[in-house]
Amino acid sequence: MQHVKDYIDTHKDRFLNELIALLKIPSISADSTYKGDVLKTAEAVKIQLQNAGCDTVEICQTQGFPIVYGEKIIDKNLPTILVYGHYDVQPPDPLNLWDSAPFEPVIKKTDLHPEGAIFARGACDDKGQMFMHVKAMEFMTQTNQLPCNVKFMIEGEEEVGSSNLGDFVKANRDKLSNDVILISDTGMIAKDIPSITTGLRGLSYVEVEVTGPNRDLHSGLYGGAVANPINVLTKMIASLHDENNHITIPGFYDKVDVLSKEERAEMAKAPFSLEVYQKALDIDAVYGETGYTTNERNSIRPTLDVNGIWGGYTGEGAKTVIASKAYAKISMRLVPNQDWEEITELFKSHFESIAPKGVTVKVIPHHGSQAYVTPIDCIGYRAASKAYETTFDKTPIPQRSGGSIPIVALFERELKSKTILMGFGLDSDAIHSPNEHFGVFNYLKGIETIPYFYKYFTKLSQ
Amino acid sequence: MQHVKDYIDTHKDRFLNELIALLKIPSISADSTYKGDVLKTAEAVKIQLQNAGCDTVEICQTQGFPIVYGEKIIDKNLPTILVYGHYDVQPPDPLNLWDSAPFEPVIKKTDLHPEGAIFARGACDDKGQMFMHVKAMEFMTQTNQLPCNVKFMIEGEEEVGSSNLGDFVKANRDKLSNDVILISDTGMIAKDIPSITTGLRGLSYVEVEVTGPNRDLHSGLYGGAVANPINVLTKMIASLHDENNHITIPGFYDKVDVLSKEERAEMAKAPFSLEVYQKALDIDAVYGETGYTTNERNSIRPTLDVNGIWGGYTGEGAKTVIASKAYAKISMRLVPNQDWEEITELFKSHFESIAPKGVTVKVIPHHGSQAYVTPIDCIGYRAASKAYETTFDKTPIPQRSGGSIPIVALFERELKSKTILMGFGLDSDAIHSPNEHFGVFNYLKGIETIPYFYKYFTKLSQ
Repeated sequence: MQHVKDYIDTHKDRFLNELIALLKIPSISADSTYKGDVLKTAEAVKIQLQNAGCDTVEICQTQGFPIVYGEKIIDKNLPTILVYGHYDVQPPDPLNLWDSAPFEPVIKKTDLHPEGAIFARGACDDKGQMFMHVKAMEFMTQTNQLPCNVKFMIEGEEEVGSSNLGDFVKANRDKLSNDVILISDTGMIAKDIPSITTGLRGLSYVEVEVTGPNRDLHSGLYGGAVANPINVLTKMIASLHDENNHITIPGFYDKVDVLSKEERAEMAKAPFSLEVYQKALDIDAVYGETGYTTNERNSIRPTLDVNGIWGGYTGEGAKTVIASKAYAKISMRLVPNQDWEEITELFKSHFESIAPKGVTVKVIPHHGSQAYVTPIDCIGYRAASKAYETTFDKTPIPQRSGGSIPIVALFERELKSKTILMGFGLDSDAIHSPNEHFGVFNYLKGIETIPYFYKYFTKLSQ
Repeated sequence: MQHVKDYIDTHKDRFLNELIALLKIPSISADSTYKGDVLKTAEAVKIQLQNAGCDTVEICQTQGFPIVYGEKIIDKNLPTILVYGHYDVQPPDPLNLWDSAPFEPVIKKTDLHPEGAIFARGACDDKGQMFMHVKAMEFMTQTNQLPCNVKFMIEGEEEVGSSNLGDFVKANRDKLSNDVILISDTGMIAKDIPSITTGLRGLSYVEVEVTGPNRDLHSGLYGGAVANPINVLTKMIASLHDENNHITIPGFYDKVDVLSKEERAEMAKAPFSLEVYQKALDIDAVYGETGYTTNERNSIRPTLDVNGIWGGYTGEGAKTVIASKAYAKISMRLVPNQDWEEITELFKSHFESIAPKGVTVKVIPHHGSQAYVTPIDCIGYRAASKAYETTFDKTPIPQRSGGSIPIVALFERELKSKTILMGFGLDSDAIHSPNEHFGVFNYLKGIETIPYFYKYFTKLSQ
């Protein structure tokens, strides 16, 4: 495979332009206004998979957005790699904080990316990272170097909980059978410090609504005399963490897998600068659960964050009102072996129980997912580690991530194979934030590294 | 004055139609989009004052919205009554909760108002109540029964803090000189239980902003590791009340005038049904400072309410974000002898001091006002009490209100006269809320009662 870098050099502009074309379509799964664009993106992915060398590609209907399935089976005695990715993207808001429009991709040079980075919603999460696999496929088939079978499963609902993927997987076990699953939707420590994500947190996402009086009230005539739903909501949310930032929901930590001192010491070896971390975010201090470091807090410990809160008058100027209702969107990141449905139920009962008299409370569960850990002695991990070592000239560091990829635990359960998280993103890519971007270096490095995974995995499987 | 009721009966339809015409103009002072409508309303009020019999009426420019000034001076040896009101209205949102459009007035019959009530933003607060004085003026001048001098000062910024009124008053002391000030912007206990407001609370309105990281963050990658501004804001707001719902800002209660047991016992005599109160609001319990009754909590005790809160993702579905910023609008109602500027400063220092590391906090004061009490032995109060007794056939109950009228304390300081709060509204009028309305009975009763005030005040002044 000595000429993968040559191939990339030759076709680099086209690789960028094809990705940019995909990024232009606002495939926002969370917002029903963009339904047509999401479907259009599925079609575009299908064409790209066909062009990349898949023998068959289908748009598989679901009760929601379709799944694009493509495959090239060269020999049933060879291993099969299943590539998962998603073609939908996060909502771009707040729009006013983007320097360039989220769906008008531009390549800009930055200090960190002197060779340029593509700025657009989805540049990294997940179109850029997903498309690396499509271009790697193209390289392998065009140069007749595909060493094994490959299947692609690219869905359109990851950002809204992949609610239809489970049914699709269960109904298509044979079609999707594989020896390893490959996902690029995570990051590395730095451009010159490769790392492989070995753990994902689970997720429980809920919405709460607190109702006080049956109408908005004048805060002079009624202030002090009735429960103010906003004040009450702040009290209830505030009570969910104690003074050590430990979550107070009864039973919340019961099933948490506590790492040993040795495991924690091993984790602590990964390069990390608290000063750089704080500086990048313009904060004077980090903040979290007492007794844990920053990288433990964001990976091996469960958390609770309010993602959105609203109620009352929020427009220009002043309005002296006691709102009838107050709302919040709350999500919890989970670790092995917390069960997300159980955690959702614990949250719901607890939150309802702490509501004072004078208000009523509604808890509406949204979606959730289980946590996951990849064992580093499995052949998939070893193949990935060798691949990064080949292209970066350094052994990648195994690292637990704070993020969630809802369907990884489901894949293991239904398809009986491990998932290898080969990510090429960076924290600074600002996924889920304004000005999301993906380094040209990272994009091309991924395309270069992935074919080595195929080579080593096939070898180690023999 | 035996024919005031006859005059009202004769002109009733016109009285209603003229008010409805005023209510149609959306004079929303808080929203700069409606500037033209606010100015249009000033002109309409001018015409009505001219028609009602004022000898001179002028639109007096300020740095904000103009003040409409009208007068009829019949004899400098007679007393002078100054009528204050406001022609601007509260914003109508949330629009979706109005049964009829806020600026398309309709008269609807209800259980409480079998003779009908006018539904519109401003129907009670303050166009309806202000216009009672204009129609009472018309009656007295048309029937040649005006016993004293009268001046009208109707402003357009009461709902946004009357920030230019102070300067106007100070610059026009002679023009505005008077023996008593009359304001109708408060309520009575019930249609058949007249009461006169003898106290107003002060106000301090602020906006707060909590900033954490310099951009929105992915709540998986960063959740648990950095301060979440929304979580922090809820903690800070929650800490402002202790377990007895007592405000925890140091120094907050230092200057509070504590009523004696006798005064509290006197207050407690006013008719009040907790069951009716709760039922009207659909709440299972009231909620407030331990050791005080509902009517003490909303009148003689200071309070703190969050009027609006927002931050993060609040749209459809889910977004797993840690917001960079969280915001709240907070107002405190004050009692004698708290000083609103001092309280604002106490809030600001305290709120800034409780911000944890990892966030920065901004406190932006909006407007404020001092509390006020009318002594019931002054001739203005006695004249008002007699007037209500005449038209209701019952002695009105003196009652402290929870609301604020920012300029009353300023009037006493600058013009050296007391304010009598002759209100004809009801709690159920839903001022500041959707479906605000004003009973036809209340409107006409006001027009009937006001001329008696003029008669008795002139008599008692001799």
